[in-house]
Amino acid sequence: MPATPRDNIARLTPYVPGEQPAATDVVKLNTNENPYPPCDAVMQAVRDTPAELLRRYPPPRAARFREVAAKLHCVEPSQIIATNGGDELLRLIITAYCDAQAVSASGGVALEDPTYSLYEVLAAIQGAAVVRFERGEQFELPDRFAQRASAAGARVLFTVNPHAPSGRMTSVETLRELAAAFDGLVVIDEAYANFADADALPLVRQGELHCDNVILLRTLSKGYSLAGLRFGYGVASPAIVETLDKIRDSYNLDALAQRAAIAALEHADEAAKTWARVRDERDRLAAALRELGFHVPQSSSNFLLTTVPGARAEALYQFLADRHIFVRYFNHPRLADKLRISIGTPEQSDRLLASVREWL
Amino acid sequence: MPATPRDNIARLTPYVPGEQPAATDVVKLNTNENPYPPCDAVMQAVRDTPAELLRRYPPPRAARFREVAAKLHCVEPSQIIATNGGDELLRLIITAYCDAQAVSASGGVALEDPTYSLYEVLAAIQGAAVVRFERGEQFELPDRFAQRASAAGARVLFTVNPHAPSGRMTSVETLRELAAAFDGLVVIDEAYANFADADALPLVRQGELHCDNVILLRTLSKGYSLAGLRFGYGVASPAIVETLDKIRDSYNLDALAQRAAIAALEHADEAAKTWARVRDERDRLAAALRELGFHVPQSSSNFLLTTVPGARAEALYQFLADRHIFVRYFNHPRLADKLRISIGTPEQSDRLLASVREWL
Repeated sequence: MPATPRDNIARLTPYVPGEQPAATDVVKLNTNENPYPPCDAVMQAVRDTPAELLRRYPPPRAARFREVAAKLHCVEPSQIIATNGGDELLRLIITAYCDAQAVSASGGVALEDPTYSLYEVLAAIQGAAVVRFERGEQFELPDRFAQRASAAGARVLFTVNPHAPSGRMTSVETLRELAAAFDGLVVIDEAYANFADADALPLVRQGELHCDNVILLRTLSKGYSLAGLRFGYGVASPAIVETLDKIRDSYNLDALAQRAAIAALEHADEAAKTWARVRDERDRLAAALRELGFHVPQSSSNFLLTTVPGARAEALYQFLADRHIFVRYFNHPRLADKLRISIGTPEQSDRLLASVREWL
Repeated sequence: MPATPRDNIARLTPYVPGEQPAATDVVKLNTNENPYPPCDAVMQAVRDTPAELLRRYPPPRAARFREVAAKLHCVEPSQIIATNGGDELLRLIITAYCDAQAVSASGGVALEDPTYSLYEVLAAIQGAAVVRFERGEQFELPDRFAQRASAAGARVLFTVNPHAPSGRMTSVETLRELAAAFDGLVVIDEAYANFADADALPLVRQGELHCDNVILLRTLSKGYSLAGLRFGYGVASPAIVETLDKIRDSYNLDALAQRAAIAALEHADEAAKTWARVRDERDRLAAALRELGFHVPQSSSNFLLTTVPGARAEALYQFLADRHIFVRYFNHPRLADKLRISIGTPEQSDRLLASVREWL
């Protein structure tokens, strides 16, 4: 007899990744990759991989990577969990902390809106409830976010900082107030923190700002130019790390990825040079788009959320795609007049700007 | 306030991977790795990885790998799902097909006993019920396995073939009867099929033996000497693959692993030479152990389950470990007088045999 999946799985609408065009002569500014390649030390580590490393099972808990990441962030190795991309960390959090097959809003996740669309899909896979709170006019945190999320019975609250897709930064003091007021786990998704002026690490370090209900998500996809490697990690109290560690797939990270990720963090100063270049280019592109009549708020990330003049965002998206320039258009009420543009190289910006001028 | 996980997660006893001794001068016959390295083409593919492949997101659905695997097994690419080790496939199956937070045996998984201990942990993470059926005296399939599992309300039935840890092979005809009699999904874990004379692929191909409720699990860990790579896959009807594909982490396989796995399957003939060597060595080691008074049933896998004379299995395990020879001892009522010994190189067998003689 044919096998039938659970109802919530049968009904599920899966996450749709950004387009990955097959053509090579494209300007790809749609999925927030770093435009510069990973540093030489990473490629050398890959090239020098011994066959023996592949033949045997990998280190199950990524012990060496955790040491290197802990040192980089001035925390303990017991505060680091390494995952198969940041996405695995998000799944582990929902699996561990949210009720399955929820019948009410209680026991589920609280989301800001707009936000990363994967959170909702992961909640649906678990069968957990989702409650949404709209970000403000300037994409500031939702009003009384923690209090309202707690009142709704949410167990986990997700916030992206710097926020995607707006690029807006929330201060660590405000995040601390959020955590103190929430009765559950606060996930601060710092996927783009490498391009910002600050981060929320003080909340997970010992000290005045310490919170025991916060986990930070980091990824090597953007800052370290390693989207192809699938390597992320969480930083939190040892108790939270231990809980998530119990439910990881037992060998969640392959030996090659661990090796490359260790090299990447050991040479973070190399990656930091690309962050500076991306930030410079972000400011140049923002200024150029503003001159062309676009509304472009300050971004602390490696993308800009621009409002297209004349509410013709979708038309411009299509015009650019026809010229092999890919940016991101979101079918969302608050984003329908906007495009999110990843920061590329100066040459890519120039090609984009030339096409935008042509379109105008 | 500190965050608290779900009850079933808080109570969970995690899976314990086999020992991975740090010392280098060890004879490691405890986790069923292939004793021979991956083929040159795989290492070449790793060495030649372009930086651009790591900078960008990987192919989300492993399209090229699925084509290569489909060709190898004479099925369609839509019948293949590629996963981060076989373990991810097992998790996807339980997540998609089993009820969460079960209050009775219904809606859960049916296991043979003994079996791979990870199944039970994955069920516990989901909160799904587990019902166990003992294998026979000679480790043949449990009596009326499918009928009793269906009667208990199980949604998914797991069987390992060739069986671990016994190495016993069940015929494809018997597996077909099992699938026909089970009211749910039958998972045939073929982690060790590369070392056997036959496999259950006829059950998922179009033809007389076809079953629409069967999924085969394959892994590159053993047969292809790539335990460090974390690459597995499922072979099933397109409907089952599509269901599981919806709940995969959206980029579950990194670009390096996909590249290496494609090279491995494209050069399966190279790997097959190692399978022949392992089978030859398996027969030689079995004969030598029998001469020393061990009971060693026929194995179709890359390990032997041997009964140690005098019911002193744990003592021998410790004696060997002290001499840096690692085999697997299971704390299980039916296995307490046995050791599972992975097949290594002839030199490793000789070192093992010398120590066993010394111990006797």
